[in-house]
Amino acid sequence: MPQALVLEEKGKLALREIDLDTDLGPHDVRIAVHTVGVCGSDVHYYTHGKIGPFVVKEPMVLGHEAAGTVVEVGTAVSHLQKGDRICMEPGIPDPNSRAAKLGIYNVDPAVRFWATPPIHGCLTPEVVHPAKFTYALPDNVTFGEGAMVEPFAIGMQAAFRAKIKPGDVALVQGAGPIGMMVALAALAGGCSKVVITDFAQPKLDLIGQYDAIVPINLGDDNAVARIEAETGGWGCDLVFECSGAAQAILQAPQFVCPGGAIVLVGMPVEPVPMDIVSLQAKEVRLETVFRYANVYDRAINLIASGKVDLKPLISETFAFSDSIAAFDRAVEQRPTDVKLQITF
Amino acid sequence: MPQALVLEEKGKLALREIDLDTDLGPHDVRIAVHTVGVCGSDVHYYTHGKIGPFVVKEPMVLGHEAAGTVVEVGTAVSHLQKGDRICMEPGIPDPNSRAAKLGIYNVDPAVRFWATPPIHGCLTPEVVHPAKFTYALPDNVTFGEGAMVEPFAIGMQAAFRAKIKPGDVALVQGAGPIGMMVALAALAGGCSKVVITDFAQPKLDLIGQYDAIVPINLGDDNAVARIEAETGGWGCDLVFECSGAAQAILQAPQFVCPGGAIVLVGMPVEPVPMDIVSLQAKEVRLETVFRYANVYDRAINLIASGKVDLKPLISETFAFSDSIAAFDRAVEQRPTDVKLQITF
Amino acid sequence: MPQALVLEEKGKLALREIDLDTDLGPHDVRIAVHTVGVCGSDVHYYTHGKIGPFVVKEPMVLGHEAAGTVVEVGTAVSHLQKGDRICMEPGIPDPNSRAAKLGIYNVDPAVRFWATPPIHGCLTPEVVHPAKFTYALPDNVTFGEGAMVEPFAIGMQAAFRAKIKPGDVALVQGAGPIGMMVALAALAGGCSKVVITDFAQPKLDLIGQYDAIVPINLGDDNAVARIEAETGGWGCDLVFECSGAAQAILQAPQFVCPGGAIVLVGMPVEPVPMDIVSLQAKEVRLETVFRYANVYDRAINLIASGKVDLKPLISETFAFSDSIAAFDRAVEQRPTDVKLQITF
Amino acid sequence: MPQALVLEEKGKLALREIDLDTDLGPHDVRIAVHTVGVCGSDVHYYTHGKIGPFVVKEPMVLGHEAAGTVVEVGTAVSHLQKGDRICMEPGIPDPNSRAAKLGIYNVDPAVRFWATPPIHGCLTPEVVHPAKFTYALPDNVTFGEGAMVEPFAIGMQAAFRAKIKPGDVALVQGAGPIGMMVALAALAGGCSKVVITDFAQPKLDLIGQYDAIVPINLGDDNAVARIEAETGGWGCDLVFECSGAAQAILQAPQFVCPGGAIVLVGMPVEPVPMDIVSLQAKEVRLETVFRYANVYDRAINLIASGKVDLKPLISETFAFSDSIAAFDRAVEQRPTDVKLQITF
Repeated sequence: MPQALVLEEKGKLALREIDLDTDLGPHDVRIAVHTVGVCGSDVHYYTHGKIGPFVVKEPMVLGHEAAGTVVEVGTAVSHLQKGDRICMEPGIPDPNSRAAKLGIYNVDPAVRFWATPPIHGCLTPEVVHPAKFTYALPDNVTFGEGAMVEPFAIGMQAAFRAKIKPGDVALVQGAGPIGMMVALAALAGGCSKVVITDFAQPKLDLIGQYDAIVPINLGDDNAVARIEAETGGWGCDLVFECSGAAQAILQAPQFVCPGGAIVLVGMPVEPVPMDIVSLQAKEVRLETVFRYANVYDRAINLIASGKVDLKPLISETFAFSDSIAAFDRAVEQRPTDVKLQITF
Repeated sequence: MPQALVLEEKGKLALREIDLDTDLGPHDVRIAVHTVGVCGSDVHYYTHGKIGPFVVKEPMVLGHEAAGTVVEVGTAVSHLQKGDRICMEPGIPDPNSRAAKLGIYNVDPAVRFWATPPIHGCLTPEVVHPAKFTYALPDNVTFGEGAMVEPFAIGMQAAFRAKIKPGDVALVQGAGPIGMMVALAALAGGCSKVVITDFAQPKLDLIGQYDAIVPINLGDDNAVARIEAETGGWGCDLVFECSGAAQAILQAPQFVCPGGAIVLVGMPVEPVPMDIVSLQAKEVRLETVFRYANVYDRAINLIASGKVDLKPLISETFAFSDSIAAFDRAVEQRPTDVKLQITF
Repeated sequence: MPQALVLEEKGKLALREIDLDTDLGPHDVRIAVHTVGVCGSDVHYYTHGKIGPFVVKEPMVLGHEAAGTVVEVGTAVSHLQKGDRICMEPGIPDPNSRAAKLGIYNVDPAVRFWATPPIHGCLTPEVVHPAKFTYALPDNVTFGEGAMVEPFAIGMQAAFRAKIKPGDVALVQGAGPIGMMVALAALAGGCSKVVITDFAQPKLDLIGQYDAIVPINLGDDNAVARIEAETGGWGCDLVFECSGAAQAILQAPQFVCPGGAIVLVGMPVEPVPMDIVSLQAKEVRLETVFRYANVYDRAINLIASGKVDLKPLISETFAFSDSIAAFDRAVEQRPTDVKLQITF
Repeated sequence: MPQALVLEEKGKLALREIDLDTDLGPHDVRIAVHTVGVCGSDVHYYTHGKIGPFVVKEPMVLGHEAAGTVVEVGTAVSHLQKGDRICMEPGIPDPNSRAAKLGIYNVDPAVRFWATPPIHGCLTPEVVHPAKFTYALPDNVTFGEGAMVEPFAIGMQAAFRAKIKPGDVALVQGAGPIGMMVALAALAGGCSKVVITDFAQPKLDLIGQYDAIVPINLGDDNAVARIEAETGGWGCDLVFECSGAAQAILQAPQFVCPGGAIVLVGMPVEPVPMDIVSLQAKEVRLETVFRYANVYDRAINLIASGKVDLKPLISETFAFSDSIAAFDRAVEQRPTDVKLQITF
């Protein structure tokens, strides 16, 4: 039986053997996992035992941000072969669902997603995965970057849903890991400049190192005036709300331009007040984002071409044997930690 | 000096002479007004003396839903001539504004809009208006219908912003005059079927007379189940929120399909709670609507071709000399009254 | 062995027994075929033995426009049950293809399409089909209409690709069966008016019976002027090119408005000259159409709600035993024949 | 009377005094011209005396790619002031036109465009221009870059019309000045990688110096295979046709992916054959481009933020007194010359 990082129950991790389904179907590939990122949702299951309606009732393997190497291919697989370096999309929709048929498989209610109860994740040396959701990595993309494709894909989905017009000016509210991914995706995806706001200066310093990203600390006296000055008072074409904070959501209409759009990425636990009349006065479009669909190959292309450099956001790498330490470090939420990864 | 229906102050109307600017510029036309509809906003200024930040501080002529006949054309006007039967778009943007240049002149902050303080409206026998915002009526469109183009244009703007795909199923929440306009515009604009909900059965009966419109009374025990049954449980492609009610806004995500859209037409006075996570789980797009831009000619085309019949919604017509009676009748808010009109 | 209408080779049809695969997979349904329409492509295989690269090398069952009744459901099928009246989408993509994942399964190069060599069609009493591509018919939709969903779906795809804005005025070039379908879909899909042109007056008379459709005979002296007059000289928002004629394609830019779109539905056999500079001067968008994807349910909704009435286009119905007569009648191409159907 | 570079007739330039309208209206600014780029259309009027229907019948001042400094502002101008460094959009639409109202002022048939007969251009020390079409340059954008905004705006318009999705792979056919502008705009506008093709190696070398641009010489034996390899055989999401060559236009469908788009930027003089069936089989969208609208501020933002560096494409700068030499150099069409500029 393989080893895996198992969340036994809320607050209790174990690196132990566990019985996993490893049958290789004709459309599947078998993968030697190389790198797995630690995601906020993994950590949340560890600390809270649930996310909304998803409750950990049985031991569950964690991990869903993964890259590795193909070690075996199913009989019907043609676009991958043994030895290919790859990364994996962690959600598998029902291929017969209405959503999948429409190409919006991310909103298929029947999707099976790694490390979302009761589905096991990929923090284990070997996994079987549909070839259709497995993507080859070009030679110049590392396994570490490959495992970053998953969180970056959320930024890509936000950038896609935003319908960026070339040269748009964007505001990203919240400089956490997802806010950073969104900022980089929006910039690579066509924006001329991305203003990003937060109260945590270390996070702003980190993302501010990138060209064309303008960090503004909301604790500064003139923060609002500075945001507004970035567009001469007209307002930002796009506001990506990544903080999930009620106050930030309520004031987003102030920063968007007439005819602009707000993309709701952050997930507030409870309903939050929105000022609909202010949104209407500017005829604002709002978009919401749920995971991602059909963006993995685009994300990899942007990394491979050098337009997006995610390496500075990989804060530290742990050995698989130190997985629990990696999670305990993630629980600390150090402001200088963006992404912790585990390698095999 | 011309006669006009003047709102002297909150609660006080007078049919009296008033001094109005009637200079004809080179790009203007002079119009003999024939029919003016009574709008909820006119009535609201009458009963409350203000709408949000717009406060009636000086006597103001009411009326902004108008049709009439061209009696004189400016020297630079080419597309209209004396004798043309026309209707008028009541908002005039600054032609040098950024919004106007973009074609979204409805969100120009400098727009001047009839009967919005301090701008006079058109309940007076003769008005001067830019030819650019004056539209010829085909012979088979009556003045009464011409004066209905303004409220119908809001429905058209909602239908436009919705990005209807042919055959979409829509839900309209709220069967007031605007909800009805939205329902008819959505149907003519490509929907296969429009479900419309309200608590007022007379309104539902009225709009339910149209083909392909399914009225459902929210007071019925099985209302939610019936709404859901209309799409086999998948959800509506589009939800047009026209009630402005907090409860209706909060539950709109329940009725929309994965990947669908909600169009916010109703205007709640205060911020209202929205369940962002529910919207995200279906990756819903939200659109907002503010008046209209570039839809008047489309609205007229739909009326002229017979696809949209607004005549059944003209509840009663008053002579100009009975204008005050018309407004007092509008204040009653009879459930069977959709649109009251005044003619010269 | 079942009976079927078999195209033995170019010019030779037989109603005879043939061995067909009738295994029922878990995601399939077994269908008693009720009505099958005769399509121009079926007739073309009969008269020419091929269409482009698709050549009839072995005997092939014809027919792909079908409606019927479910007689057995696979073990994994949940949305259909025995006795359901249904119609069927004739193209089955590779579910693992890139195009299918994107939701544009119509352009999957590996699609298997009924009655396209070497795939057998459905002119046989019983067929097995994936439930995913089988659609329930509401009670008020007849089998005849159900079998019309396939050709109407091409019109729907054209209307979808056109991105109709509510109230658009459209021109349809060519009043053959597909031009008629496009005209009806464009009208139901949001256009205010559809001008349709052809040289064959009987076809124009037939489609001209519908409201809001304006037939113009291109042989008339003032045809061009009449087309232009329908939009006051501004041009049509949309031109649907359904004739496939080189001359019609070349002159389409003349009829479209600045910023408008041309949808290329007709299929000219050889490359045809296009005047790119004329298209650029109006910044025209061009769309192309290939079969359809994700429109069947929308098409059925429009028929069920009464917005689209296809029954007048069913010209005559033949018994299955008279199938060959039906095809020979189709070969005649009577101008008053739109759709011939065969029933079991 | 001011000096100006005057095209007296085909083939004959003069630097001489000429009487120009210099009245300053309330919405205008007076500008001291600093830099003017030499455009292919200027050169074409010089060598051919006409472009299509536009014929030089009277002496005409050349030049339409300009940057300078505001020296006087009209009484109604608020967003600019004396001393502002600016660049100018050379086409002035009729503000009352239908196209302008729609926001697509580039396709207004009544547009007045600098150096398009009979409208004078800006190769003169001082010009008067509407403030609405005059754009402030940030401090870090040079006059030389400011004068490059005009040709870059064509690239921006192409990128805008393409509806780039983040991470798209694009092919640009033709590495002339416009092809280069399109490549840079497409990359900044969201593409992950731009393949660019031409037969002239010096041009490819020049544009190939930019990151994420892949130059391929069409004269190489394996050029087609190399283009196809850049997307693993799937095809490019976008093909920007900038060569205007019939052969390139005909084969563009080969390089685009299913569901992709071709943007027609190059302007073939005569109608050219297009293979519509090949376009349909991939359901390709085609877009055309005519000048630009509402992209100047976006272009400036991209230059100011550092995402687009146009300076390497300014090949040589001439004094105004050497204007004729600059034009004679442009006539040579040296493959290493991208943009020649003239300064005052």
